[in-house]
Amino acid sequence: METTSQQAVQSAEAQVRSDDRNHVFHSWSAQALIDPLPVAGGAGSTFWDYSGKKYLDFSSQLVNLNLGHQHPRLVEAIKRQADRLATIQPAFANDVRGELARLLAERAPGSLNKVFFTNGGADANEHAVRMARHHTGRRKILAAYRSYHGGTTTAMSLTGEPRRWANDPGDASVVHFFGPYPYRSAFHASSAAEETQRALEHLESVIQLEGPGTIAGVILETVVGTNGVLIPPPGYLKGVREICDRYNLVYIADEVMVGFGRIGEWFAVDAFDVVPDLLTFAKGVNSGYVPLGGVLISDAIAETFANRAYPGGLTYSGHPLACAVGVETMHVFEDEQIVQRVRDLGERVVRPELERWQREHPSVGEIRGRGLFWAVELVKDQSSREPLVPFNASGEAAAPMNAVAAACKAEGLWPFTHFNRVHVAPPLVISEEELRRGLDIIDRALVQADALVTG
Amino acid sequence: METTSQQAVQSAEAQVRSDDRNHVFHSWSAQALIDPLPVAGGAGSTFWDYSGKKYLDFSSQLVNLNLGHQHPRLVEAIKRQADRLATIQPAFANDVRGELARLLAERAPGSLNKVFFTNGGADANEHAVRMARHHTGRRKILAAYRSYHGGTTTAMSLTGEPRRWANDPGDASVVHFFGPYPYRSAFHASSAAEETQRALEHLESVIQLEGPGTIAGVILETVVGTNGVLIPPPGYLKGVREICDRYNLVYIADEVMVGFGRIGEWFAVDAFDVVPDLLTFAKGVNSGYVPLGGVLISDAIAETFANRAYPGGLTYSGHPLACAVGVETMHVFEDEQIVQRVRDLGERVVRPELERWQREHPSVGEIRGRGLFWAVELVKDQSSREPLVPFNASGEAAAPMNAVAAACKAEGLWPFTHFNRVHVAPPLVISEEELRRGLDIIDRALVQADALVTG
Repeated sequence: METTSQQAVQSAEAQVRSDDRNHVFHSWSAQALIDPLPVAGGAGSTFWDYSGKKYLDFSSQLVNLNLGHQHPRLVEAIKRQADRLATIQPAFANDVRGELARLLAERAPGSLNKVFFTNGGADANEHAVRMARHHTGRRKILAAYRSYHGGTTTAMSLTGEPRRWANDPGDASVVHFFGPYPYRSAFHASSAAEETQRALEHLESVIQLEGPGTIAGVILETVVGTNGVLIPPPGYLKGVREICDRYNLVYIADEVMVGFGRIGEWFAVDAFDVVPDLLTFAKGVNSGYVPLGGVLISDAIAETFANRAYPGGLTYSGHPLACAVGVETMHVFEDEQIVQRVRDLGERVVRPELERWQREHPSVGEIRGRGLFWAVELVKDQSSREPLVPFNASGEAAAPMNAVAAACKAEGLWPFTHFNRVHVAPPLVISEEELRRGLDIIDRALVQADALVTG
Repeated sequence: METTSQQAVQSAEAQVRSDDRNHVFHSWSAQALIDPLPVAGGAGSTFWDYSGKKYLDFSSQLVNLNLGHQHPRLVEAIKRQADRLATIQPAFANDVRGELARLLAERAPGSLNKVFFTNGGADANEHAVRMARHHTGRRKILAAYRSYHGGTTTAMSLTGEPRRWANDPGDASVVHFFGPYPYRSAFHASSAAEETQRALEHLESVIQLEGPGTIAGVILETVVGTNGVLIPPPGYLKGVREICDRYNLVYIADEVMVGFGRIGEWFAVDAFDVVPDLLTFAKGVNSGYVPLGGVLISDAIAETFANRAYPGGLTYSGHPLACAVGVETMHVFEDEQIVQRVRDLGERVVRPELERWQREHPSVGEIRGRGLFWAVELVKDQSSREPLVPFNASGEAAAPMNAVAAACKAEGLWPFTHFNRVHVAPPLVISEEELRRGLDIIDRALVQADALVTG
């Protein structure tokens, strides 16, 4: 016989399901074909449903919650700022808005000294592109295939994967090129060094054939996120920087997903020793506890708008509640030595474990990553590298990946899967025990993929 | 001799100024030519600077803070939800996300039963346009001159005023038409009825000449906001609805600025007895305490995406912290009878006072508005209707309007001015005493404009 408390929980869950199904329109979905799980709560690296079932969160809620669910200091920062001043319009000066801008500028490399705050990553990229265009007086932007830059028109056009397709034509002044991807080289390269060299030659060819005088800049995810955790091979980003300098193009680094400790650096460009002209961020800046994004701006580009109005803005730019959580995030990062622990866990725990999978699971084609951001690429055949499911598979064609995900969920881990890959992207505060437990669950789930190996 | 406490305040202010000038990049501005006022706090209809000087907020921070600064119940809602669950990704079901969607659907007219949540008004309009395009299979969107729809690429292209100019070309599939504006009729009409009839004929001509089979929909601010508080004359919006039905176009109502009580209605369309197919909102839904926007979607359009994926999304869609403040906003509106008090104050206090200005100030050309949303249009000559400053004036040409604004600020009122207009848009919780006091300040400031009247 059920207790009253159990009945209350069931009734609460029924209300959540009913409201959701009747009234919430979900992102990127056919509304009648989804069955969203009602989430009841979260803490640290875990969230749970109304049955009390807990999930280790290996996706960080779209690689957003870098400091995990309900970090006490971030919750306290929200409450403290709510009591002080929730919001004020962008034309005023505000203490936490200015403080966060300063803290970001202090941590960012080079002369990235000014911050234009936005609501998220998409509009950060929209504004970065706009700044590049007005700074150069040119319109074209080069963006990579296998990239994601956001859901508004220009951000969508920058994107180099299927989410863009249904939205074409959008911003007509975007041209796509191929970035490095040694495991599936577009350049028939046989080493990382060769991949770098050929990818740079390719980029320069595109620039020459498009006409350098028509191009405002190049945008690149410093580490490609959803489209594969593609770590740029040595020398690539430095080469991009040199090419941009040679042709006087603006180099925009999109760090919406990989900034703020994800790969064990404050900013991902720090790992590759390059300084972009514009750097976009969101997500990890405050773990998305309050929507926030922005653009870090070099002195040279800021100077363009010293005496000439920047033609863009938004009501919530520099939102105090959002910025207060950002300020506290910067302090937590330092007090909890987040960057250092991410490096340590990545090299000491994740890398050896994933390397073992590559040796022991016939379905594992390649593993790659850095910090707490990794991809495990699943294949039907290790020698031909044929993906376990076709590019952009859905429905029945995607069944093998769905089986891997279902096996993870059954054991209490919420995975991040995309195409033929399982990503490892837990909150950066995850304990070593949780991290090892989660990796063990994925390890066992890969048996689902091994069964389908034909090679 | 200064007290220690005064020194501490001055030092705090100096830090705010320094951080702001060194590190914050401001919207729509030439960065070296601005001097943003450091705001120290706010409550209700008032905010104050570090000297302790208080300002009556007659702009509601970009017509955003419908429930005023630091409403205790909204602050409490933030703190309560922060303790429960700050955020969760859009693919899950969440209690407050679903509850706010249900509360909005219950209050919205017609079959606007589903909500796609965004971060603000710009992306709400971007997604509404995308839905209209996919629903119809057509691309062109008709938008009005003298409109503002947001700062991202498509939202910017929809915009029909100078903020778009520097951003052209953007979304190439937007066509602008003229809406009704009896005081400066584009149609040489001599009555409101004639303006309605001619504006509808104009819209239909544009549709025919653009080709109905190429057009996805029409977007209109239900009451044009920043571009003039243009109240549609009787029959106009009903006529637009009929035209959209006749040509099978999607009617998108942009209520980012005018929804949630601003004109004394839950949704502004309620005042005009029309039901759009999509309705976009932001700002007043939670007074911007946490960034939030969204699209209310008719059953027919939602059905288009029942079995076919909607190609759009964003990480913070349906953000729980933002939605919790929205839920509390709906309750405060009812408990404090906001809609009723706005109607009462608008008709009983504002309208008679502004009508008196029109009689007594030679610089007042026209006054118009509804609820707590009014425009006072200033002219050099009441008979010729020549604006007090030229369209899109800046610098010296804008000096007369700057003088009016400065006179308001000197007396402790922060006005909303745009081109040759002073708007009245205080928080909806303003007391009658504050409202009368603020109007008296503007009344006195208008002497600055009267001195320039030549007619």
